[in-house]
Amino acid sequence: MLEPDILRAFFRPRGVAVIGASTRPAALGYAVARNLLQGGYEGAVHLVNPKGGTLFGQPLYPSVRQVPDPVELAVVIVPAAAVPRVLEEVGQRGIRAAIVQSGGFAEVGAEGQALQTALLQTARRYGLRVLGPNCIGILDPHRKFNTTFLPPPPPKPGGVAFLSQSGALAAALLDWSYPRDEGFSLIVSTGNQADLTWADLLPWAAQDPATRVVLVYVESPPDRAAVEALRAAALHKPVVVLQAGRTQAGQRAAASHTAALAGSQALARAAYRRAAALLAPDTRTALAWARALEARDAPRGRLQHIAVLTNAGGPGVLATDALAERGFHLAQLSDEVQRDLRAFLPPAASVANPVDMLASASPEDYARGLETLLAAAEVDGVLLILPPPPGHSAGAVARAIIPVMQAHPKPVVVALMGGRLTPEAEAHFRAAGLPVFPFPEEAAAALDAWARAQTRREAAGQAPLRVTDADRAAAERALRAARPGWLPPTTVAALLDAYRIPRVAEAYAATPEEAAAAAQRIGFPVVLKVHAAGVVHKSDVGGVRVGLRTPEAVRETAQAWQARFGAAWRGVVVQALAPQGHEVIVGGLRDPRLGPVVMLGAGGVEVELLDDAAFALAPLTPADLDALLHETSVARRLRGYRHLPAVPDQGLREVLVRVATLLADHPQLAELDLNPVRVTPQGTWVLDARVRVGGAGERDKAADEKEQSAVSREQGAR
Amino acid sequence: MLEPDILRAFFRPRGVAVIGASTRPAALGYAVARNLLQGGYEGAVHLVNPKGGTLFGQPLYPSVRQVPDPVELAVVIVPAAAVPRVLEEVGQRGIRAAIVQSGGFAEVGAEGQALQTALLQTARRYGLRVLGPNCIGILDPHRKFNTTFLPPPPPKPGGVAFLSQSGALAAALLDWSYPRDEGFSLIVSTGNQADLTWADLLPWAAQDPATRVVLVYVESPPDRAAVEALRAAALHKPVVVLQAGRTQAGQRAAASHTAALAGSQALARAAYRRAAALLAPDTRTALAWARALEARDAPRGRLQHIAVLTNAGGPGVLATDALAERGFHLAQLSDEVQRDLRAFLPPAASVANPVDMLASASPEDYARGLETLLAAAEVDGVLLILPPPPGHSAGAVARAIIPVMQAHPKPVVVALMGGRLTPEAEAHFRAAGLPVFPFPEEAAAALDAWARAQTRREAAGQAPLRVTDADRAAAERALRAARPGWLPPTTVAALLDAYRIPRVAEAYAATPEEAAAAAQRIGFPVVLKVHAAGVVHKSDVGGVRVGLRTPEAVRETAQAWQARFGAAWRGVVVQALAPQGHEVIVGGLRDPRLGPVVMLGAGGVEVELLDDAAFALAPLTPADLDALLHETSVARRLRGYRHLPAVPDQGLREVLVRVATLLADHPQLAELDLNPVRVTPQGTWVLDARVRVGGAGERDKAADEKEQSAVSREQGAR
Repeated sequence: MLEPDILRAFFRPRGVAVIGASTRPAALGYAVARNLLQGGYEGAVHLVNPKGGTLFGQPLYPSVRQVPDPVELAVVIVPAAAVPRVLEEVGQRGIRAAIVQSGGFAEVGAEGQALQTALLQTARRYGLRVLGPNCIGILDPHRKFNTTFLPPPPPKPGGVAFLSQSGALAAALLDWSYPRDEGFSLIVSTGNQADLTWADLLPWAAQDPATRVVLVYVESPPDRAAVEALRAAALHKPVVVLQAGRTQAGQRAAASHTAALAGSQALARAAYRRAAALLAPDTRTALAWARALEARDAPRGRLQHIAVLTNAGGPGVLATDALAERGFHLAQLSDEVQRDLRAFLPPAASVANPVDMLASASPEDYARGLETLLAAAEVDGVLLILPPPPGHSAGAVARAIIPVMQAHPKPVVVALMGGRLTPEAEAHFRAAGLPVFPFPEEAAAALDAWARAQTRREAAGQAPLRVTDADRAAAERALRAARPGWLPPTTVAALLDAYRIPRVAEAYAATPEEAAAAAQRIGFPVVLKVHAAGVVHKSDVGGVRVGLRTPEAVRETAQAWQARFGAAWRGVVVQALAPQGHEVIVGGLRDPRLGPVVMLGAGGVEVELLDDAAFALAPLTPADLDALLHETSVARRLRGYRHLPAVPDQGLREVLVRVATLLADHPQLAELDLNPVRVTPQGTWVLDARVRVGGAGERDKAADEKEQSAVSREQGAR
Repeated sequence: MLEPDILRAFFRPRGVAVIGASTRPAALGYAVARNLLQGGYEGAVHLVNPKGGTLFGQPLYPSVRQVPDPVELAVVIVPAAAVPRVLEEVGQRGIRAAIVQSGGFAEVGAEGQALQTALLQTARRYGLRVLGPNCIGILDPHRKFNTTFLPPPPPKPGGVAFLSQSGALAAALLDWSYPRDEGFSLIVSTGNQADLTWADLLPWAAQDPATRVVLVYVESPPDRAAVEALRAAALHKPVVVLQAGRTQAGQRAAASHTAALAGSQALARAAYRRAAALLAPDTRTALAWARALEARDAPRGRLQHIAVLTNAGGPGVLATDALAERGFHLAQLSDEVQRDLRAFLPPAASVANPVDMLASASPEDYARGLETLLAAAEVDGVLLILPPPPGHSAGAVARAIIPVMQAHPKPVVVALMGGRLTPEAEAHFRAAGLPVFPFPEEAAAALDAWARAQTRREAAGQAPLRVTDADRAAAERALRAARPGWLPPTTVAALLDAYRIPRVAEAYAATPEEAAAAAQRIGFPVVLKVHAAGVVHKSDVGGVRVGLRTPEAVRETAQAWQARFGAAWRGVVVQALAPQGHEVIVGGLRDPRLGPVVMLGAGGVEVELLDDAAFALAPLTPADLDALLHETSVARRLRGYRHLPAVPDQGLREVLVRVATLLADHPQLAELDLNPVRVTPQGTWVLDARVRVGGAGERDKAADEKEQSAVSREQGAR
């Protein structure tokens, strides 16, 4: 976490020095100086240019070292090669915050990467924090603080804070908002993120009183620190994330653009879920969600049962589809509500949901219909459809319903369908701060934003679950002697037992005779599994026999394997036969960016084929647990199908929490595979488990890699 | 298929009578008269109102019977109750085409339904075809023919024909198009479709020279006739379908709105695939697709490898994701092309795909970059991203690239990102008839429209596959004695054999001794399956034993079952053990709307759980066959996974074609279930099959139902 004072220096400096201020109107350094000086910012603005002279009636200081107090922020817009030297002077002047807008760094290849390393080294030497390089800076329309070179006027003050790894996208979406009269509370371009990242700046946006929702455009996949920053922000404000590089092709494109490494999207989804962020599927949805959440907070109450109010059937059906596709239910209107609607609507109107008032509906009908629906206990929110009514103006309808929308705490979203006959209505809604959408599907998406924000807000407050009855010390002892690689079965058993992860009764036997004896101790029928060097998927090589009922059968099977596997033979595992049930896979791994991660997979050997697996960050929150079960078919399976009975999921949930705690507690655990885990009405048991300990290098791979690349960058800079 | 002359009477009548023309400016009958008379239509327009007088300088005839020649179309806008009487006069006048715009029919309940039946009876008596009731009529901006009551001016002439079951949606999307300066070739509102449906009118739009693409808004699920109409149209023009009632909730909403019964969406998807239509996921995408296809035809060549040309990295990555999500590949640019790009771009530009020319890119750079990419053999199309460049105007870029776009046959789509700095560029593109989209994802959707239209055009030309070596007569003989219900195993075997659907060698045995003897004939090992009354899923009740190796084992198993199932016992099926392989389910059913339908399901007993099944209309086209394999995991499975080898899919494809032919040939077959079908490197075999013959009523259920409801409607009308 950054010191609050550093954040303040970036966002609300008492004085700013523009280094590279230029008298040439076509130069970016001219535009930056103009925007800061003429934009109305209340702090001091100093201009620096070695050529001297004046600009906008201000002196051009030859160096930042000559700039008088107050000065807390440097905005640097000089050629890349000059930046390290300039930062040297910034540091010497005692400034601790710099925005480097110049391009020509890591984004342009090896040479630029070297310059970026030099920039960073200089900054570190002076305790100087840097935003950029290769960014367009910070714009706060409320404070009239604008370090960008974008053409005036700045956008109108609003409630959306936009943090963007792409300056061009920030500029384009800003430009898009002008004719829509949509405002921003903050625009922050983070560029190459050589030092500060969007995650570092997020706390400012989350605490900013003018900001109602944060929109983040992300090109590098999230790491644990970003997840924690998002999660902390989500306690204050909803955060919408637009993630580029979702596909492999996109990841490659992002890498060539910002040199950011991208990971698997399944992991990224798990990360954003834990982060309690709203992950948008595309740019338009990201904007729609942000504008909906700017207009109003997620409601406190339930938001599940929606009423559709329309004057036309077709759009009502489209809205119904769009709501159902997003998980909403159509509210079942009570007889009383239907009677109230019938009282003023024509006989041909449909008073069941969707409520179709017919084309003749007047502004008064719309207002009364809306009021009736909002007052109904069975209605959590309303999707109102307003194509220009044939006999009335859409503007008149808007004027009639806006007071109703404003008077009622339940959310209402309007699909204002049209273009030629709708501008007046649109202006009324905008003036009232109410978002409108041209299509029913997009109105449904706005309701979805509120529902998601509600869920996220709850999830953000959840503490991760940890088991308290684990014998951590016993696990440490078992791991002390472990060498990197897959652990022997005895160590695996000790780890599971230490965390009370239930295993089916089993014994390890090195010879066929030991196997027969072990089977007798465990009790028949038993399962026999081969332990042979190089065999990973035992069932694929015929190395599993189920339901052996006599000591002879056990001995013979073991002998046959001994002969067949020859030198690879190590012995067998003798296992009690678990009751019938559902089989799942519980996995775990340590991701270099995200740390310990748990996987739940359905469907035994077919798991790779079916893509029926979900991930979550360890340790798990209650929301993570639910997601693991419901994002896969596991929750459906456990409800029973065909001849398999319904099975309570409590046992599996406990196994997941225990595995997550084990992974989180012991950083040397690199990979873990409980496959299968049998979930039965009698209990849940691990039938087979493999655990891998990482190499010394791998153990702190992420940290190592960071150091490594810092070193190589430094070497490259010499 | 309608007679062409009837279609001409609706769309290009030599004379029109407006029945219900009103002198009150607020009346819809006034607006219709105004739009027809003042809109510039070249045909004769006659006005009818029993009160007489004049309107717009024309006489108001008391009845349509007094209207002089020429008159080929009646536009009826009188109160619902008067409509049957008016149609009587229309019929007496010898008019064969009527648009009934009045509401108050089936959409308002039982009373309206009775009026609608009366309307239909009158029309049938005179050989009169009716569009509507409850519709807004026909609008042809090219011919200046406008029977609607929408406020002038009509939309500008364009290339999109919009057929809509919802008049309100037609009006709203028309209104939406005005500020975008987008035109239409036709707008047709079909309302309650008492007589003519959108499918009846589709041939006109498909043949209309001004129409480049047809957009259909559909509320009732498709039937076989609609599928055939769409497929025929797709040979001429791409058809985009926006289907409401996609979800169960939406189906209920549609039913309450148009009294249309809706079927399963999986079947609807299969129907639109066979129809070679582009099924849009939402309204915005439907419009984007239509506008893209209006701007240009689907290219003749391959459209798979796309180049992204941008001046900003972020939007380039978003575009890359959006392309990959839609199944496109990023073109791999050759060294030569990269060198050509490098020749004029700054060193920091990225010349790999996406090509990022950097923010400094000039209009000339854009034009040269686009030209270079379009000339590259490895590039099938270009997604060009144009946020307002910092140093140039977007309009200048538009002027520079439009000639390049127009000179080259490969498709180019532009993401013009912004709002304040983009109107000039947008105007240039629009004037050139080139569609632009504000976000990279929507530009990718336009490319997707062209790619889909290309695939659909090919699919529309495919003839359904039928096997020629089937012994249809033998199947008829086997079915002659069949009673409604599940067929006995011997009849099932005869049907499969007649259509050469390969079964695993098997015999039916009524006693344990017969079973042992049969097993010896077939050869060990064998599989034994119980045949017992009331047992449908044999494996669920322990009624399947695999790999019996001796006559004794067969006899003992059969004896045990005989004892266990008691009175329900009927015997056993003895089956050869098929080689190891992949198991799938091939199903078939007769849908009341769509007729014979084939299903392919993956994953044995888990099929219901996994939602891993696809449907296609029988008989199957090559495109249907591909879809069955690729919309499920079957194609992936057959490529091999884990220890299961890759298996050629030819055998399974043949089984599918044979099953589809069997279903199509024999309308009495109601349901069919080949489960499992084992697909192995040695061959494909049906291991178990069930076939059901429908009852007399069910056999022609669809036809019966239609008759029934016509009868009850008639009775209701008396």
